[in-house]
Amino acid sequence: MPQFYPPVRTLMGPGPSDVHPRVLQALARPTIGHLDPKFVELMDDIKRLLQYALQTKNELTLPVSAPGSAGMETCFVNLVEPGDKVIVCINGVFGNRMKENVTRIGATAIVVEDDWGKPVDPNKVEAALKENPDAKVLAFVHAETSTGVESDAKTLCALAQKHDCLTIVDAVTSIGGIPCDVDGWGIDALYSGTQKCLSAPPGLSPITFNEKAIEVIKNRKTPVQSWFLDLNLVLGYWGSGTQRSYHHTAPVNALYGLHEALLMLEEEGIENSWARHRAQHEALKTGLEAMGINFIVDEKSRLPQLNLVTIPDGVDEAAVRKQLLADYNLEIGAGLGAFAGKVWRIGLMGQSATNNHVLLLLNALKACL
Amino acid sequence: MPQFYPPVRTLMGPGPSDVHPRVLQALARPTIGHLDPKFVELMDDIKRLLQYALQTKNELTLPVSAPGSAGMETCFVNLVEPGDKVIVCINGVFGNRMKENVTRIGATAIVVEDDWGKPVDPNKVEAALKENPDAKVLAFVHAETSTGVESDAKTLCALAQKHDCLTIVDAVTSIGGIPCDVDGWGIDALYSGTQKCLSAPPGLSPITFNEKAIEVIKNRKTPVQSWFLDLNLVLGYWGSGTQRSYHHTAPVNALYGLHEALLMLEEEGIENSWARHRAQHEALKTGLEAMGINFIVDEKSRLPQLNLVTIPDGVDEAAVRKQLLADYNLEIGAGLGAFAGKVWRIGLMGQSATNNHVLLLLNALKACL
Repeated sequence: MPQFYPPVRTLMGPGPSDVHPRVLQALARPTIGHLDPKFVELMDDIKRLLQYALQTKNELTLPVSAPGSAGMETCFVNLVEPGDKVIVCINGVFGNRMKENVTRIGATAIVVEDDWGKPVDPNKVEAALKENPDAKVLAFVHAETSTGVESDAKTLCALAQKHDCLTIVDAVTSIGGIPCDVDGWGIDALYSGTQKCLSAPPGLSPITFNEKAIEVIKNRKTPVQSWFLDLNLVLGYWGSGTQRSYHHTAPVNALYGLHEALLMLEEEGIENSWARHRAQHEALKTGLEAMGINFIVDEKSRLPQLNLVTIPDGVDEAAVRKQLLADYNLEIGAGLGAFAGKVWRIGLMGQSATNNHVLLLLNALKACL
Repeated sequence: MPQFYPPVRTLMGPGPSDVHPRVLQALARPTIGHLDPKFVELMDDIKRLLQYALQTKNELTLPVSAPGSAGMETCFVNLVEPGDKVIVCINGVFGNRMKENVTRIGATAIVVEDDWGKPVDPNKVEAALKENPDAKVLAFVHAETSTGVESDAKTLCALAQKHDCLTIVDAVTSIGGIPCDVDGWGIDALYSGTQKCLSAPPGLSPITFNEKAIEVIKNRKTPVQSWFLDLNLVLGYWGSGTQRSYHHTAPVNALYGLHEALLMLEEEGIENSWARHRAQHEALKTGLEAMGINFIVDEKSRLPQLNLVTIPDGVDEAAVRKQLLADYNLEIGAGLGAFAGKVWRIGLMGQSATNNHVLLLLNALKACL
């Protein structure tokens, strides 16, 4: 059996995005112990850099040692108890996954549904909040990776606060690509991913919880159902000070990579990163529309970093994706769920949001059509 | 804020162990998509190599995308339902963690306790099995990382089978270091870690389930409480064939590293790896005993890869560990739980089980005492 040398792809699907050589090289630095004083220093740096990326001063800000789905589960299992009521907004795959999380806890999900490709409707959310004054949490997806839609997180959080409801926000695809103002909007709990606009490899999930959310966790009536994701325990390791107690063995090398990717975001400046994503989206849009390819999502809720576009008439969408991969080593995404077979998902995330990526995509696609 | 360049340590604690440059370099290969056909080929290779490492033909053999604690939780949340009875053997930290898993599911833990530093007593287990004919699972730790003890997994599994009870085995520290014959001993479910005798970085947890265990999962009355760890869903991604459905985004680069580490195990031959761990343990033992340092665990249940040893009279154990790290970049482990402050834990795991490691440890320790 031979060693595995992956092909050098250009990643323009829904994630992972291209990882910069600096980050890849960081992964290969020698492994040290998860309780080594030098590693504890790195953990502190990562926390500070994550606070910058998530635009928050929350002390409880750390990367969960598992992918975004586990970050989602961390938010739900810590904040929600059996019997609680959670308003879950569903306008794509990840809202559905949130609902699964709620019901598996033994809590009740009140579903606010919107069509795939549309943002969460704040009027429906307000109606649900009024009808359910006992709802404990409002959960929604800021940037839906399955549909390329941005929902108005600021407005939704303001509604939740007005009705004394906590918020859990999925920001897997938003962080680094569009503004997501955790403190300014009053988000109580949020999870993200590393393999989208942060351009680190997949496998970690940054989370942040504010003081209000921490109080809720501290005052739980039942234990958190997951030992691995119980923040009371995780904090013994990721908390402050030099004395860190062993909880689980942190994924040391993956954290080297995340640290380097976060440094690169800080060097660029997060506002510049948002502007870069926006500018590359505009370039892509101009090029695609000139080819008669249109966007699925209305302009005002369109994500710059994840573009859902129509398949030209008579084109076999899977064959084109296959050809892009075979002839150009270029990955774009298929549609998921309601959009399966009907759209392409073109990612411009993190290191994949450059002029060269847009040029390659437009010309390779032109050649395949 | 500067980039992070870790010190080059020699890792002889309870894990992580030293990672070979081949594995570090594999981590740095370019990221590709988690649904890329080339990545699916890699997944198949990893499965085959894990079957070799775990000595099993089980089809359900895969690395959970999170550390060993999540592998433990995967075994419990899939096989145990609320109200079930689980016999949990506790002779160290990780048995206690198993009990936590059981109670957080809403199941009942029947505890069989043995002293720290002693193996699980089969007579006590048999008595518990007789007293609890309705017990569904017997759970125990094969190689207790907190105490350096091997329990007799073969005998314990035979007892469980005799009493029609499933087994969940913690083999985090055993795989690659001592024989662990999943199929031969009839282990139903097992989890391991990557950062011990496999010498890949921490962050993944190989698991394996036999057909009997899969039947139990298929016939559950309640949904698995964790969405992320629900094997019914994970299998859509890690199952056979070329059509893999998206569940979560796999930690692509971490899997490059695991693949390389497993290749190295195959190249060496697992029997040779066991023999190497045994031989280095003998060398360490000779050297330590000549210095008047003794072993905590009886010879017949002593793990070669994790050595719990006494602190010489009048020696400040923490100061010595600190000096080893500062002067020799050498990490050894402190005692945990009942052994805190009373022992050192010296690991000879995977790439850290070499002549040079033993020589360095003996001479550096001599210089510090």
